Amino acid sequence: MLRFLTIFLITSVNVNCIYIVNPGPKYPPTKGEVWPKPQNEITELTYYTFDPLNFKVKVTNNTCDILISAIERYSYIVKSNKPQQDHRPVSVTERRQHARQAQTLQLGVLQELQVQLTEPCEEYPYLEMDEKYRLNVLAVSVLTSASVWGILRGLETFAQKFYISRDMNELRINTSVVVDFPEYAHRGLLLDTGRHYISVPNILLTLDAMTINKMNVFHWHIVDDQSFPYQSEKFPDLSSRLLIFYDSLYGAYHASMVYTKNDIARIVEYARLRGIRVLPEFDVPGHTRSWGNAYPNILTSCYHENEVVGLGPMNPIRNITYKMIRDLYHEVQAWFPDKHLHIGGDEVRKLCWRSNPEIREYMQKNGLKVEELHALFMQNTIPLLADGSKIVVWQDVFDENVPLTSDTLIQVWKDEWIHEMVKVLKTGHRVLFSSSWYLNYLQDEWPMLYMADPRRMVRDETDNNTLPAGVIGGEACMWGEKVDDRNVISSVWPRASAVAERLWSAPTLGETSPRPEVYQRIEEHVCRMNRRGIAAQPASGPGFCLV
Amino acid sequence: MLRFLTIFLITSVNVNCIYIVNPGPKYPPTKGEVWPKPQNEITELTYYTFDPLNFKVKVTNNTCDILISAIERYSYIVKSNKPQQDHRPVSVTERRQHARQAQTLQLGVLQELQVQLTEPCEEYPYLEMDEKYRLNVLAVSVLTSASVWGILRGLETFAQKFYISRDMNELRINTSVVVDFPEYAHRGLLLDTGRHYISVPNILLTLDAMTINKMNVFHWHIVDDQSFPYQSEKFPDLSSRLLIFYDSLYGAYHASMVYTKNDIARIVEYARLRGIRVLPEFDVPGHTRSWGNAYPNILTSCYHENEVVGLGPMNPIRNITYKMIRDLYHEVQAWFPDKHLHIGGDEVRKLCWRSNPEIREYMQKNGLKVEELHALFMQNTIPLLADGSKIVVWQDVFDENVPLTSDTLIQVWKDEWIHEMVKVLKTGHRVLFSSSWYLNYLQDEWPMLYMADPRRMVRDETDNNTLPAGVIGGEACMWGEKVDDRNVISSVWPRASAVAERLWSAPTLGETSPRPEVYQRIEEHVCRMNRRGIAAQPASGPGFCLV
Repeated sequence: MLRFLTIFLITSVNVNCIYIVNPGPKYPPTKGEVWPKPQNEITELTYYTFDPLNFKVKVTNNTCDILISAIERYSYIVKSNKPQQDHRPVSVTERRQHARQAQTLQLGVLQELQVQLTEPCEEYPYLEMDEKYRLNVLAVSVLTSASVWGILRGLETFAQKFYISRDMNELRINTSVVVDFPEYAHRGLLLDTGRHYISVPNILLTLDAMTINKMNVFHWHIVDDQSFPYQSEKFPDLSSRLLIFYDSLYGAYHASMVYTKNDIARIVEYARLRGIRVLPEFDVPGHTRSWGNAYPNILTSCYHENEVVGLGPMNPIRNITYKMIRDLYHEVQAWFPDKHLHIGGDEVRKLCWRSNPEIREYMQKNGLKVEELHALFMQNTIPLLADGSKIVVWQDVFDENVPLTSDTLIQVWKDEWIHEMVKVLKTGHRVLFSSSWYLNYLQDEWPMLYMADPRRMVRDETDNNTLPAGVIGGEACMWGEKVDDRNVISSVWPRASAVAERLWSAPTLGETSPRPEVYQRIEEHVCRMNRRGIAAQPASGPGFCLV
Repeated sequence: MLRFLTIFLITSVNVNCIYIVNPGPKYPPTKGEVWPKPQNEITELTYYTFDPLNFKVKVTNNTCDILISAIERYSYIVKSNKPQQDHRPVSVTERRQHARQAQTLQLGVLQELQVQLTEPCEEYPYLEMDEKYRLNVLAVSVLTSASVWGILRGLETFAQKFYISRDMNELRINTSVVVDFPEYAHRGLLLDTGRHYISVPNILLTLDAMTINKMNVFHWHIVDDQSFPYQSEKFPDLSSRLLIFYDSLYGAYHASMVYTKNDIARIVEYARLRGIRVLPEFDVPGHTRSWGNAYPNILTSCYHENEVVGLGPMNPIRNITYKMIRDLYHEVQAWFPDKHLHIGGDEVRKLCWRSNPEIREYMQKNGLKVEELHALFMQNTIPLLADGSKIVVWQDVFDENVPLTSDTLIQVWKDEWIHEMVKVLKTGHRVLFSSSWYLNYLQDEWPMLYMADPRRMVRDETDNNTLPAGVIGGEACMWGEKVDDRNVISSVWPRASAVAERLWSAPTLGETSPRPEVYQRIEEHVCRMNRRGIAAQPASGPGFCLV
């Protein structure tokens, strides 16, 4: 039997791979399938045709600025679907077929979408906001949700369900019922604007793409060792003095490469209208070299053989360090309305701390080990945040035994992530997962990202059915070493779409690779993103998009 | 001693990597350094400033349309260099320093470039055209070459030597002498427009980028199994019938995704004016599935258990196959002026030939093995080309013992390439090298591509000093599975720049990785490409470009 199987396998490989390469796209795209896949969806074969001139959206209950602006946006998106007919004469057979189909399956023209928000709007998106919605596609379609965030998600689903008929003459939408909600509450994307500056228009485009993929947290790793593009009002010198031809003296790479208060307000508002939180990260005490261009005294001088060889992490034993952090964080928290602030805490170069005589003396006097300095630093820093703030940290902070309140979110990013997640969850902390989703590994393709299922990992490891719920989400991370305005959009999309579907849709259920349906659906999704202005790159192989 | 060394190494790692991350770009770019590096160059510290209003280019000898158009282009490029001053007040110290420098190093204002073409122009670029030039930068600079192609390369060098002064107020060019010529005659880039359609504007941009990198062959892998975008006048059905929503019946992916005679003429002319040959590839007998959408009879029906399971390579025993090839090749050779035609010959699925009863019977009757069918096919095909044609083939054709004239170029693309190159060279054939330069492996970074030195490989393997000369060039190959209009430019550049410098400049001389100078020079080069409209992605890490 085994032998028979082997022969069969080899033969089928011959037939599929060695003999035959089919012309046309490798994975023919689906038509009107939604990405990320809804939790529950019944789609029938019957359909309505769409006439942009005779379609309207009606609000039948609560409304607000977010709702009004979303309806405006989606009305435009829906109406800008265009038939893509060429002028080839359609054959008689085809015309007959089309007529027959119209007779049996077409239920008429789509007239209206009623938007029914049953509770008042909220102003800002937040962790664990309600995103559930129900969509009924009929001649008079109805979208219902208790939350404006659910309405936003439902409008996106509605927009994605349109498709062009086979003969390319007609826009259609199938009769369907969707009852949908996300699997994970925190579905994020990290962009790093410290290593390469990303222009505001590209950040807004990224927010558009996140909307199309129902992601809800833009994790903005805004500054890093290399540059400080955040233009502070309290500390303008952090960014505004110009770096002249690579003399490393000033914060931003260039006077033009900053984010002003005005830019930040624009980004936050653009995100809010799309139900996306902006989670700023000001990483401390490591990854802060650029702070030291204007303020070297808050950093640690690193020594080698009694000579200063450069600047390392923040100096944890000086008051000015904490004064600066407090003042800057207060400004940041005034500019970014989200309750959460990411304070980093990864990759602290403790060898530099240890090399510094002033710090060594302090450790000796206080009987501290160098590892304990990190805890000291964090314990001094966390109380500096605005009242009611919640924090997110990289796993290093947890690993180094810094005391943390139970609502602190731990972002797992290193290797041996299953073990780490279980360890964190067992202490009662909640986890954001990122280890498998580092988009800066440009060779990692979407199917690999797609199959990483953090709750399943925890369940398989522990046989515990309640522990996995502590994984409240995850983030795709695009670190900035290799991406700038020229390639950031195509490098992130559609790979982040794989993460988006994993975080929204039902879990993988024991599969080891994406089903063929997923390959076809992501093809449609890439073309959809292209049509909506996102330069997503090809997902899986030969093919094409009409834009 | 070893122990001492170990300690030293660890310490120096600490100093460089663990303690210190410097702010600013990882590799500060050079200023006015040329890419690819000239063979001989003396650059002095003295310089001329540049005033676009008082600079002219003068032709002092032969001229022609290529020369006139090049001078127009480069005058614009040179004059569009802009000082990038910000409005920061320059400090007194800096002003003094600047004045002192101006006193000792500034030799005045650049007045003129004299262009001296000592022989009449040629009309089309060709294999082993003369590209040597001599450039003398002085107040009145002189560019000399015996060939218009050399003048083109020299103008590019001249344009690259401008840089902006430290205080960003002034454009400068240093006193210098360049005597330059390419190491390899054939410096190519392959784009595959069969797997994804690439728009004509992106092909023209690619030609611009090739010009900046002194590459001289655009290898246009125009059609493949998946689609046939070449719009033939003799066989319009090959492309023009529309593929409707992925019914695999027609040649091009879409009616809009074709290259017309007019498009081709535009691309060929654009390339000619830049000294770039357009080498079209119409791959036979494999990779031809898309031909069969309109003309299934020229392909082989593949059988599995007595049933036809699809279409494979061209049918080598039917006259209609050769008639079609002849007629199409004649058209292609009329539209593409280059003497060379690439006829492919790679990856022929012989299992399909063997599965076909008609072909099996033919083999039996003629006492042929299936391997010999490839030779038969090529022997029938080569005489169909226009008189005086020369051919390029993939190594498979050589490997399968097809008789080839000695001027046939063999393109080496598979593994074990050193062994293969030596084998080919020993038969007297000349080699194009590509194995190490497959850009579709997106994870391969430029330093790896840069260090592949085919002549050195052959020399090291054989200890023979004449054999390496038979490697007359190479090509960076961007196969189209994962790239389309959205990411093709940033995926190709600057990685193809590494190949361009390897093929133009002197050999690697025993080094195993690029020198630090190269890292800095490619940073400047990426920004230069960005400024000239090429969306090249970051080369090596954090940094920025002003555009």
